[in-house]
Amino acid sequence: MLVTHSPASVLHDPTGYFRRGRTVEHPEQASRYRILRTAVEEAGHALLDTADHGIEPLRAVHTDSHLDLFRTAWDRKAELPGIGEEILTGHFSRPQMHARPEGLLGLLGYHMADTSTPVRAGTWEAIYGSAQAAISAADAVPERGAAYALCRPPGHHAYADSAGGFCFLNNTAIAAERLLARTGGPVAILDIDVHHGNGTQGIFYGRGDVLTVSVHADPANYFPFYAGYAGETGEGAGAGANLNIPLPQGTGDGAWLEAIGEGLRRIAAFRPAALVVALGFDASEHDPIGAFKVTTAGFEAAARAVAAAHGTVLLVQEGGYLCEALPGNLVAFLRAFEEARR
Amino acid sequence: MLVTHSPASVLHDPTGYFRRGRTVEHPEQASRYRILRTAVEEAGHALLDTADHGIEPLRAVHTDSHLDLFRTAWDRKAELPGIGEEILTGHFSRPQMHARPEGLLGLLGYHMADTSTPVRAGTWEAIYGSAQAAISAADAVPERGAAYALCRPPGHHAYADSAGGFCFLNNTAIAAERLLARTGGPVAILDIDVHHGNGTQGIFYGRGDVLTVSVHADPANYFPFYAGYAGETGEGAGAGANLNIPLPQGTGDGAWLEAIGEGLRRIAAFRPAALVVALGFDASEHDPIGAFKVTTAGFEAAARAVAAAHGTVLLVQEGGYLCEALPGNLVAFLRAFEEARR
Ligand SMILES: [Zn+2]
Ligand SMILES: [Zn+2]
Repeated sequence: MLVTHSPASVLHDPTGYFRRGRTVEHPEQASRYRILRTAVEEAGHALLDTADHGIEPLRAVHTDSHLDLFRTAWDRKAELPGIGEEILTGHFSRPQMHARPEGLLGLLGYHMADTSTPVRAGTWEAIYGSAQAAISAADAVPERGAAYALCRPPGHHAYADSAGGFCFLNNTAIAAERLLARTGGPVAILDIDVHHGNGTQGIFYGRGDVLTVSVHADPANYFPFYAGYAGETGEGAGAGANLNIPLPQGTGDGAWLEAIGEGLRRIAAFRPAALVVALGFDASEHDPIGAFKVTTAGFEAAARAVAAAHGTVLLVQEGGYLCEALPGNLVAFLRAFEEARR
Repeated sequence: MLVTHSPASVLHDPTGYFRRGRTVEHPEQASRYRILRTAVEEAGHALLDTADHGIEPLRAVHTDSHLDLFRTAWDRKAELPGIGEEILTGHFSRPQMHARPEGLLGLLGYHMADTSTPVRAGTWEAIYGSAQAAISAADAVPERGAAYALCRPPGHHAYADSAGGFCFLNNTAIAAERLLARTGGPVAILDIDVHHGNGTQGIFYGRGDVLTVSVHADPANYFPFYAGYAGETGEGAGAGANLNIPLPQGTGDGAWLEAIGEGLRRIAAFRPAALVVALGFDASEHDPIGAFKVTTAGFEAAARAVAAAHGTVLLVQEGGYLCEALPGNLVAFLRAFEEARR
């Protein structure tokens, strides 16, 4: 399997994370990149340090003001006296009020959904590199039939103009736009991260050329809380082109694979030119912030299902947090995918 | 001056406040109540421990789900393992996603705008008592001509369904509704807190029977950031019934009093049956989180202007944070108001 990645991924390494009223260790650490990269190297996959495809592919998904903020925020930090190693805010634009301010602190809360996406000295380089890795993989997929983008930081919680849930730039959406341009479309996205792919849904919600399907823990009592419900099916030209399959906490292999099967049947009916998989491993039974009980065998079965579903498949790394099972689940998924393709 | 208050105010005493990426001391402390109360007592004003007018007057402003959440959140804290003395969240509903979840953590972020409104053991009693004090003062005003509600926690950043900016229940809006019912209306609100009265604006934005005027620091680079701009003038039946006068940081007595005069001229033209003043003292030159340079003489001049503007005036305490000048500015304001009325 071709594995694209960016060594710049390590340049964003958040420490604290304000959660439920206290600061805890941030789960989305740079070591996720190192561990996943080492695992795929040792498993014999071909690693490709990503080329730089420039800012234009990012502009296909994100607003200029969103990109500008995260490109320049660290350099503007003098606007916030007393700031240390990272910039965050506790104030956010809301359904009731969402005028766009001018100062840095207000802009952060305009372009962030929560307290999980601190801006540090290397944040822009890391998220830019992560997005570039997704683009490189998208470019390789039409010829190779499959590729895996080791994106870190992840992306599927990022909207066109808002970071959130550890995500700044929506790597999956950026890759899907690239594949849409390369193939003529349409493109389907299957998100199997344990969290709803709310940013991806939001980006394509009004469009009929990208089908978004997400299998995830019920947001009624799980992040991202405010989107991911079954009743959200798209709007306008995108009406019917969004499928959410929320599942109860504690869901194991059987029901999870059944939901993935349902998603893949919908995708087959959509007849996409390419399939992008938002590949989180936080559905694992061992994940420290997960909510499901998916085993390594479950991930292998999902890989076989995805491999059989389409001839042109792009795998984009999303969540999956530090635990012993994490690298093994990735290696098992890629191996099962490749064996199914033989 | 009749001063209404609730001793329950002290039952909400937050400690830390997550701001700009770090936890700092919370500026909205219970001692604000004690200091302001001692000051008016020593100045010889008549203190009235508020009666309990029940939940109905709160329901005139807030949604049932908002009231239910803050009434029950602390009792539901077992839903959040590991919670200490207070409940907060770092995730918030947003313009892009705002379905209402079921679990406590998600509900908190649905009904909160930021990280400044922790729920503690006595929070409901304190905010309920603070709102009751506003109602008692509103009931006294038609006969007495004036009253001051020593509300703490403050209220003007609270929307119908959202806390924020240290505010949970909008005491000013609740009092305005009470006066509307008592007098037949219409009612005008003049907010001279240094921060825009965004919650109050939001509550009455579509209504023509309550004119909302706010004089405050330009939100382009100051809390609440996402509302408070001059272009926000009301909508529907409330079109033209909202006036925002944002002023630059560093504004002193002259420009501040001129803006208040402009607000009062608009209010006079509206011919209200009563005037509610959202009375923050954080425009003070000494306020620790303020942005203006208003002196004690400036507050006295504001008091004279307000006293002359209407025969039925309700003063509702909003912001103003711990500093030596705080109690003196309140006492000076009340004295200047009463002298002007003689
Ligand atoms: Zn996830
Ligand atoms: Zn204030």
